[in-house]
Parts: sequence; C-alpha cells; structure tokens
Amino acid sequence: MKKICVIEGDGIGKEVVPAAIKVLDEVGDFEYIYAEAGLECLKKYGDAIPDETIEKAKECDAVLFGAITSPKPTEYKGKYRSPILTLRKELNLYANVRPINDFKNIDLVIIRENTEDVYVGREYYDEEKEIAIAERVISKKGSERIIKFAFEYAINNNRKKVSCIHKANVLRITDGLFLRIFNEIGEKYKDKIDYDDYLVDATAMYLVKSPEMFDVIVTTNLFGDILSDEASALIGGLGLAPSANIGDEYGLFEPVHGSAPDIAGKGIANPIATILSAAMMLDYFGMKEKGNKIRNAVKRVLEKGKVTPDLGGNLKTSEVVDEIIKELRGY
Amino acid sequence: MKKICVIEGDGIGKEVVPAAIKVLDEVGDFEYIYAEAGLECLKKYGDAIPDETIEKAKECDAVLFGAITSPKPTEYKGKYRSPILTLRKELNLYANVRPINDFKNIDLVIIRENTEDVYVGREYYDEEKEIAIAERVISKKGSERIIKFAFEYAINNNRKKVSCIHKANVLRITDGLFLRIFNEIGEKYKDKIDYDDYLVDATAMYLVKSPEMFDVIVTTNLFGDILSDEASALIGGLGLAPSANIGDEYGLFEPVHGSAPDIAGKGIANPIATILSAAMMLDYFGMKEKGNKIRNAVKRVLEKGKVTPDLGGNLKTSEVVDEIIKELRGY
Ligand SMILES: CC(C)[C@H](C(=O)O)[C@@H](O)C(=O)O
Ligand SMILES: CC(C)[C@H](C(=O)O)[C@@H](O)C(=O)O
Repeated sequence: MKKICVIEGDGIGKEVVPAAIKVLDEVGDFEYIYAEAGLECLKKYGDAIPDETIEKAKECDAVLFGAITSPKPTEYKGKYRSPILTLRKELNLYANVRPINDFKNIDLVIIRENTEDVYVGREYYDEEKEIAIAERVISKKGSERIIKFAFEYAINNNRKKVSCIHKANVLRITDGLFLRIFNEIGEKYKDKIDYDDYLVDATAMYLVKSPEMFDVIVTTNLFGDILSDEASALIGGLGLAPSANIGDEYGLFEPVHGSAPDIAGKGIANPIATILSAAMMLDYFGMKEKGNKIRNAVKRVLEKGKVTPDLGGNLKTSEVVDEIIKELRGY
Repeated sequence: MKKICVIEGDGIGKEVVPAAIKVLDEVGDFEYIYAEAGLECLKKYGDAIPDETIEKAKECDAVLFGAITSPKPTEYKGKYRSPILTLRKELNLYANVRPINDFKNIDLVIIRENTEDVYVGREYYDEEKEIAIAERVISKKGSERIIKFAFEYAINNNRKKVSCIHKANVLRITDGLFLRIFNEIGEKYKDKIDYDDYLVDATAMYLVKSPEMFDVIVTTNLFGDILSDEASALIGGLGLAPSANIGDEYGLFEPVHGSAPDIAGKGIANPIATILSAAMMLDYFGMKEKGNKIRNAVKRVLEKGKVTPDLGGNLKTSEVVDEIIKELRGY
C-alpha cells in the first residue's frame, strides 16, 4: 500500500487537502502519515518546517502538500526556512510540472526548473555599499536535467512541441547557457517533436493573446513561477491549477494556489486544484487509470457548473467533493 | 527650439519613427538630429551603438527611439552592447514609465526601475563548476529614487494608489529591501495617496483577471519588463504601449514593442505606440497641452476603428498617421 505524507499547512490548506483525501479514498487504498509545516507550525515550534516533517516526507512514497502562509519579511525578523522551498531542495524535486487545462479550450503544460535561479538562497546585503545582491545560478547539469525531462514528458504525453522561455537577449550567459542546451537537446529529439523558443516578456503577452501558440513550456525557476500564475488566469484563476514537484527519488504534489487567509474557514475554497494534484500523484505511482478517472470526474463536474464561487458557482468545498465522488461512482 | 535625437533602429523602427515625426511636426517645431544604432549598425561598424550616437543623444533635449533587432546569443559571438540598455545606462535613465491605456476600460501605469536588477551586466560563467551566474543587484539609493519617482508621478497625475510588486517571500534580502523602502516612503505619502503591495506571481494572474485592482505599479527592472508586456495584451498587444525612460538630465521615448522583422517593410506597422511615446516626450518638455492633443486624436482614431491589422483594422501605417493628423486639424 502506498504511503502518503500529508502536509495540510495553513489556511485553506486544511480544507482542500482533506477534500482531496476523500477523493483518493474513493479510488484506492492509501496510508496517510501526517506532518506539520507552515506559519502555525512556526509559531508552535519556532520552525516552519521541523526536521521531523522532512524525515516523514522521505519515508513515504509521495507528499501531498496543501498551502502555507509565509510570514511577511517586514514583520518576521527571525531565521526562516520556507517549507515548500526546503522540501523541493531536501527531496531534490527538480521538475515542477504545472498543467494549465480548463478541460475545454486551453491545454498547456509549464515545466519549471525547481532548484536553481534566484531560489538557491545566495542572497546578501553589503552594508557598506548599501546594496542587496541575489545570485541567479543556472548550471549546465541542472539545465540538461530539466530540459531532457521536458522533452521526455512531452513525448510520453503525446504533446506536439516544447518551447523554451528565456531572457537570453539580456541574460546572455545564464539564459544563453539554458537556451544553447535546449537547442542541443531539441536537435536530438527533432524527429519526434518540434521545439522553439521565446523571450519571457513576449511570452507574458502571447500567453494572454494567443495561448494556443504553446504546448509544453520549459523554463527557469522564477519565470516558471510567474508564467504559471499568469497562465492560470486563462482558466479562471488558481482554482484549477495543480502541480507536481518531481525528482529522481521523490514526488510532492500541491495546488499552485496559496493558503488564501481571506477565505480560510468559510468552507468555500475550491478543492479541484488539490484533487487534480492528487491525480498527478496517482500518475506518478503508475496508476494512470485512476488519475484519469479523477480528471474525467472533474471535467464533468466543471461542465455541469457544480463549482465554488471563484469559478462563478455557489457550491461549498464539501459539495464539490460530493459531486466529484458521485461522478466517480457513475451516478 | 527643442532638439530631438532620432534613432530609428531596425525593422519597423524605420517606419514608426517617421510616422511619429509627422505627428510631431503637426503640433510644433522641432529640430531632429539623426543617429544610428541596432543590428544594421552592428554589421556596418562592428558596434550596435557607436559612441557618436551616445554623444548625439547627450547633446539633444530628448531621444526618440524606434526599435532594434538583437543578434541571437546563439548566433553572434562577438562583444555586444545592447543599444537600449547602453542608452539607459549612459544617460542614467532610471525610471521607465509604461502607461497601459486603451482609452476605454483599462488605464494603469507601470513604473519600472531601469538601471539595476539582473540588468547590471554582472554575469559570468564558472568553467570549472559549469555554472553560470548573474547578479541581481538592488541598491538602497536606486530603490529610494524609483519609489519616490513613482509616488510623485502618481500624485502629479491624479492617480489613486501606488502598488509595489515584488517577490520578497523568496528574495527576502533584495526585494525585502525594495519593499521595506516602499513601505517607509508610502507611510510619508499616505495622506496624499494609498499604497499596497503584491507578489509578482500573484500580480501576473491578477493583471489578467482584475486589472482594475491596479493604478500605478512600481517594481524592479525585470518584473517591470515582464509585467508591462503582459499588461499590453490587455489592450490588444504592444501596438498601443508607449514608454518614457527618464532620468534627472535626459529623457528617451520609445514604443515598448520591438523591431518586428516579420512585418517590417510591409507598411502595416502600428505607429500609435511611437506616436504616444512622442506625446510623452512633449509632456517631458513641459508641453502637456500638445501631448494631450495627440492623445485625444489617437483616442478618436481608435474609437473610429481607423487602425492597423494588429488591432483588427485594415489601414496602413501611413493611413493611420493621416487619420491622426486629420483629427489634429479638427476635421
Ligand atoms: C511560496 C513560494 C515560495 C512559491 C514559489 O515561488 O515557488 C510559490 O509561489 C509557488 O509557485 O509554488
Ligand atoms: C530589448 C530588451 C533589452 C528590453 C528590456 O528587456 O528592457 C525590452 O524588452 C524592453 O522592455 O524595453
């Protein structure tokens, strides 16, 4: 039986994760190991992600992650380890896969490098000069790894094209490296799949104007962060945006959305992004049929407009889950 | 008489700049000093921006800049100075003002810091470790300067709110500094104007879903680059997006769009972004009435649908100019 480490986190994390577990229980038998992380955890233990949580994550077959609230840098002065960034790093989850799919018109996937760029944590303040510096680090190995991952993903999922998004006209060395490796690898795959590349600023415009230009996108960490949130607006917001954080040994599955303190506790959070993340976890377990079953049920619920307020409906979180379970049972 | 340094550049730069000059000549008397920059210039002189061009720019009261084509980093191996980045630096044009206005529903302004961030050119490759590094530099002085500029701009233009866009949850030191300074300065201006802040990823989503949330945005260089292109999609693309690059001594005015090699030479480039940039130059000269005259003429031409193909019309560049001139003459 697959063992899942469950980290609900803060805010609506506590609502959408239990919702996804109900759906998981409907399609299979799983063991759940609960672990803590987030702002509440920080207040309780002085650490937003205790070592115990990392150990539990490593003992399980996958992690299901909700959302956490970060302390504002202007309010919290102590040493802070971001739970999600720490897990991505500790579990070496180098590929962040973010499908943008409304089960209607839009269907693209953003594959975001998940360990490098300005996320490496090499940031310091030069008191004397009064300048702050963050290093943007792009390695040859890291670029090869994520770009190969993207091509393999595209081929295995019957996609037509991989696009590299970069800012190599300004970042001639870092993104120059990323783009050069992309072109080298693309050349090797060219009999199986098309490839091209665009500047990140142009892409930010094209995503809104002509999203059909894109199929699979591969990009560096921060651009992937920004573009995936932007793309989610095309499908009505983050309520339908799941994600998989994948490495060679571990997998972590989380909605792209945050903890949404403004609606937490009201029972109206959209559980679909987390449910679709759980479906990606099933794919990762090799249970692709179960994953598809869930996606099909979600599709039908969306078609029927049985959705939460963020998507224009008036259902509660629990009612959406009930509808999805009904579909799974074939009513 | 004001002296304008004219740099047409490459591609449609050679079409939209002459179009804007026709409009300028309609509302006033200006002297034009022509200078070269761009890919053609690189091929001719081995330098995309000769020193002579920089000197000419410094001798004039303002620069009107078209667009240039960058050589691909994968194709051009020589030392390359980007014309626009060099001018921004040499003329110390620290504020990039990008209005996003369709003269109908959308009206916001992005104020982008224009000299720091990953644009400082501190980028290198570590052969041994096979990693490329770019430094993201945010200074206290540079942040204060652009944030004050944004508040003053907002107040002088009867705006209601200034929003700081950042990624301080990850970039706790660089964007932490930017955000802290923003809050300090905002506090001083709070009797005159509102202020708030958002994460850049969330903003990329909100800009599409609820652009009315924003009024004046102030942000660091690269985020401003990405968000302004994205926002332009809300008003039909870059065809209506002008910009001003402003410092304490000089001003440079340019459309946000590039040289568009695919449509260059066809006579169908949309000249409005450059014409609106010229109008911003008139504001800068203290000729706000003339600037408004041009904006009003553009507004009427848009209302009448007398536009180029990118906006769904069938007019040529020259015909749009004729229509704007007709409006200026009061037909
Ligand atoms: C919470 C934050 C550190 C994170 C990121 O920037 O990666 C989030 O925005 C995401 O996209 O998963
Ligand atoms: C051409 C490029 C260097 C430039 C930038 O990145 O600033 C452009 O995209 C812009 O927005 O003016």
